[in-house]
Amino acid sequence: MDGKHEVSILRIGHRPGRDERITTHVGLVARAFGADRVIFPDAASSSSSTINEVSLNFGGSFRAESITNVSKFVKSWNGSIVHLTMYGQPIESLIDDVIISHHSDPLLIIVGAEKVPFFIYEAADWNLSVTNQPHSEIAALAIFLDRLFQGTELNQSWDDAKQKIIPQKSGKLVEGN
Amino acid sequence: MDGKHEVSILRIGHRPGRDERITTHVGLVARAFGADRVIFPDAASSSSSTINEVSLNFGGSFRAESITNVSKFVKSWNGSIVHLTMYGQPIESLIDDVIISHHSDPLLIIVGAEKVPFFIYEAADWNLSVTNQPHSEIAALAIFLDRLFQGTELNQSWDDAKQKIIPQKSGKLVEGN
Repeated sequence: MDGKHEVSILRIGHRPGRDERITTHVGLVARAFGADRVIFPDAASSSSSTINEVSLNFGGSFRAESITNVSKFVKSWNGSIVHLTMYGQPIESLIDDVIISHHSDPLLIIVGAEKVPFFIYEAADWNLSVTNQPHSEIAALAIFLDRLFQGTELNQSWDDAKQKIIPQKSGKLVEGN
Repeated sequence: MDGKHEVSILRIGHRPGRDERITTHVGLVARAFGADRVIFPDAASSSSSTINEVSLNFGGSFRAESITNVSKFVKSWNGSIVHLTMYGQPIESLIDDVIISHHSDPLLIIVGAEKVPFFIYEAADWNLSVTNQPHSEIAALAIFLDRLFQGTELNQSWDDAKQKIIPQKSGKLVEGN
């Protein structure tokens, strides 16, 4: 988002027919909160299409990509890895370390579904929790990116947008075609 | 959460068979981020059960409640109303007003699905956007509550928890039965 190294989101554990909307929300949040791309397992092609359509309409260079082998992708990642999990250490205590690391390295953020294979916990430089309560990988990702970008993500501008929403006190105003 | 007036979340536009998981995530985020209760339309009974089961296991007094008539409920609300919408005014510019209002009044936060009836825009004291980009009502709610409680929600304690997650550098540790 801000000229530092790339921030990629990897969504794992997608179950076709059950997780489409959750996976789509993960991708849209990744985009709206300043990540550079989201990576889905290839079973999530309908979520990929939705994300890329939104990018085309609302601007920016964010893209959804597909991979076939999650394990290979994670193990060959060249950069730092954060795994968001309710079992991890509090984000508040370690986000400064992540921010410092991000000054020199690309960052991969892994968000899982209900079952996360153990190699993910091992591959992660940080297993971080956004509270230790059960809630939502969508909310955890939003709060993580908000802390990473320290609120600046709320004021991004979007290049080449076909549609633009103009904030209103009441009602809706959309500019564009 | 913190001795001020009650914070309630109202989820509208729930479509049975399609929105269960999104609605459940809205409720779990409401709980984990310090709201007092979530109100669902009565068609969302499976989400209500999930939320109340989580509260029973992980503690606290948060509850999911059902209503039959959304319009009547909103119009008779005695307090302030925030409607979270991508079409609204930026949260950054108005959150201080909401915080001040919350010192003296209960707060109702309305999160919608794709179509929101116009009376909601009119009933709201503030129509607020968390970015003007399409993303997720789950993420919008998390960021709103985080700003309302100014990060203190991440350090809540939970009374009468049967299960408690102990933060780990790697792996999982759950205390309780």
